[in-house]
Amino acid sequence: MISQSNNPITRPVIGLLTDFGSGDGTMGIMKGVIAGIAPQAHIIDITHEIAPQAVASGAWLLANAYRYFPARTVFVCVVDPGVGSSRGAIALHAGSWFFVGPDNGLFGLVLNEQPLRGAVALTNPAYHLSHVSSTFHGRDIFAPVGAFLANNPSKVFPLLGTALDAASLQPLAFRPASRQDHLIEGHVLHVDHFGNLITSIPLTLVPELFTASHVRMTFQQQRNVTITLRRRFFADGVEDEQAFLYSDSSGYIGVAIRNGNASSTLGIGYGAPLCLTIATEP
Amino acid sequence: MISQSNNPITRPVIGLLTDFGSGDGTMGIMKGVIAGIAPQAHIIDITHEIAPQAVASGAWLLANAYRYFPARTVFVCVVDPGVGSSRGAIALHAGSWFFVGPDNGLFGLVLNEQPLRGAVALTNPAYHLSHVSSTFHGRDIFAPVGAFLANNPSKVFPLLGTALDAASLQPLAFRPASRQDHLIEGHVLHVDHFGNLITSIPLTLVPELFTASHVRMTFQQQRNVTITLRRRFFADGVEDEQAFLYSDSSGYIGVAIRNGNASSTLGIGYGAPLCLTIATEP
Amino acid sequence: MISQSNNPITRPVIGLLTDFGSGDGTMGIMKGVIAGIAPQAHIIDITHEIAPQAVASGAWLLANAYRYFPARTVFVCVVDPGVGSSRGAIALHAGSWFFVGPDNGLFGLVLNEQPLRGAVALTNPAYHLSHVSSTFHGRDIFAPVGAFLANNPSKVFPLLGTALDAASLQPLAFRPASRQDHLIEGHVLHVDHFGNLITSIPLTLVPELFTASHVRMTFQQQRNVTITLRRRFFADGVEDEQAFLYSDSSGYIGVAIRNGNASSTLGIGYGAPLCLTIATEP
Repeated sequence: MISQSNNPITRPVIGLLTDFGSGDGTMGIMKGVIAGIAPQAHIIDITHEIAPQAVASGAWLLANAYRYFPARTVFVCVVDPGVGSSRGAIALHAGSWFFVGPDNGLFGLVLNEQPLRGAVALTNPAYHLSHVSSTFHGRDIFAPVGAFLANNPSKVFPLLGTALDAASLQPLAFRPASRQDHLIEGHVLHVDHFGNLITSIPLTLVPELFTASHVRMTFQQQRNVTITLRRRFFADGVEDEQAFLYSDSSGYIGVAIRNGNASSTLGIGYGAPLCLTIATEP
Repeated sequence: MISQSNNPITRPVIGLLTDFGSGDGTMGIMKGVIAGIAPQAHIIDITHEIAPQAVASGAWLLANAYRYFPARTVFVCVVDPGVGSSRGAIALHAGSWFFVGPDNGLFGLVLNEQPLRGAVALTNPAYHLSHVSSTFHGRDIFAPVGAFLANNPSKVFPLLGTALDAASLQPLAFRPASRQDHLIEGHVLHVDHFGNLITSIPLTLVPELFTASHVRMTFQQQRNVTITLRRRFFADGVEDEQAFLYSDSSGYIGVAIRNGNASSTLGIGYGAPLCLTIATEP
Repeated sequence: MISQSNNPITRPVIGLLTDFGSGDGTMGIMKGVIAGIAPQAHIIDITHEIAPQAVASGAWLLANAYRYFPARTVFVCVVDPGVGSSRGAIALHAGSWFFVGPDNGLFGLVLNEQPLRGAVALTNPAYHLSHVSSTFHGRDIFAPVGAFLANNPSKVFPLLGTALDAASLQPLAFRPASRQDHLIEGHVLHVDHFGNLITSIPLTLVPELFTASHVRMTFQQQRNVTITLRRRFFADGVEDEQAFLYSDSSGYIGVAIRNGNASSTLGIGYGAPLCLTIATEP
């Protein structure tokens, strides 16, 4: 690919990820606040459709997305069941990017992949709106902090508040998939727009997925569902209505039905536990 | 907060609020029209999910949002059950902002809060698309007018058409909450993405909400629902599944259930009438 | 209208149309890729709510929208049931616009209206992300190609890959309406956000729609539904709950119910076949 990383960034990029939905105008309000502080910013919605207060799901979607954004992008992320409580509000500098939001593990998967260069508690009210409500920190704290940060990241970051130790950050409530020899245990992380089931099993945990003689995925709560087909390509030689395993673009193993909705057809949804068995012999 | 209002506005901001949804491409078409006329504009979606033709709901969402946008933002708003009839098309200059849309009361709550500096009927076809359809004034009139206006508000505003008196504008069909001593009557204005009920009672009408010895909210159509709990913070000492009153970030009193959906749990939706009683003694 | 076409285009416009929905972050990821390559681009969502893999519906929505965008806009369109198969990936220069996406007929209606000035297969990996997955060509191929193209259309277009003949492009799987004397046969192309039925019959095929003495629309699968009312304006003299024919802003004949949802009230949805009969005498 030609020179993506060497392009000068001539306007700051701010990525937004929330569970606010699009019907209440809340993300529009956040963008209005940003436009007043960082008029040149390019605001990009990642999604506002995280299941309400599903921090782990938000963490996973953010981890899929951030690396495709330019260096110095500021991600303002709000999935925040603890708004109004004593949970902290933080900004992080991790890898080449900046992250602003509640301290509840939402950034945990990013931190598994990127070196933490700095962390601050958002204690300096000079970077907040002058009136901070108890219920809408996205508007009153996270949006203005993200906008000021995007204008001048290296200068503003240390001014946002008190520096934090990495050890003091909240961990992610997220159970990673585990492997014992030929048995891998995981769960459904996300049901995508097409009804595909994205599992918590990264392909790197099962490098032989497509080369082993046999594989079998089962679901503890749907004992009649057994999936043994594997396909590298959606369109490749699978009959309609047959479920198969594939390598999702996120790097995780997925379950799909060609021209169909795997979630509704199989009766399996978000959070369902599952096992993947890899055969050693035919 | 640091210098928001003193920042020079280096690109015009256009806020969009409609009931068009996101599935028909209509808001994309409006943005294409705007991009051709005002190439530097920053277009911000407030929401396109207003309930179809719910003018009062649109008015309320707009009133929550506009003040968070930079001065000189142009709001193009289309909730327009009367498209194709003789209802007027207008632009308003109110406070520091501009508003473009149908003359049906959609801007009524803004005008309750901001001084009207000017009003014009959009009678000058030089600022419309050359072919105006009978069903899509958002594309053919409101988007191009908003874009020309954003490019140069003070010059373009008086050229858009005939000046109007404030008295000739349509009033908002919106019943405000009323208070008689310790009894306040209102209704549900909006059910938000989390299922919280936003009432039509502004906190300013009940300044003692959190200090009175007792309060009680009842719903005429759900006689078994009585709410007496109050919480300043979502996360503060409320059991899951108990409904409580809170101060919504919009400035109105809301009803929520921690980690739950108040609307579906209580069986109460948009428009439901309600009473709030304030106790004077224990 | 004043000078739309003569405005210099000072930042490139990229229009996005997909069936990705807004819940998975996929369109956010595509925008992150674009922002890294074309930092000045104005990215406009047309819609991401095309019914999954409904190529004809996507083609129709694109054809409604593209002409309202500035010249040199690059449309990145992904409705792609064949991802991972041998279907081609293409860029087209048609009329004043550019189009990037799968070669599956998605651009067929645009090509019915605009002269094809060039077509290329996207075979040059220098314009793709360095790692191309088998399932997310929107991120790995179409977004970067669209961004490089927007930066400098005339220079980049021929470098994207091998030139293609118009005759080698896939045709659209789309059955146009047909007319035999006074009988027109068509189907429902789209159900819009308000429940209006948009038919596949362009008004130009029935220029006498509003002047003929009688017209009658019937649906083969709902024999009790017969529509004989016509209205030029939504608000004009139709009782609530009566269905009527109108001229949709897309140029096609539509069916609506004033202040109601025609699709759910009549029990008619996407794809339903229909006949329109034009009376020659009273």
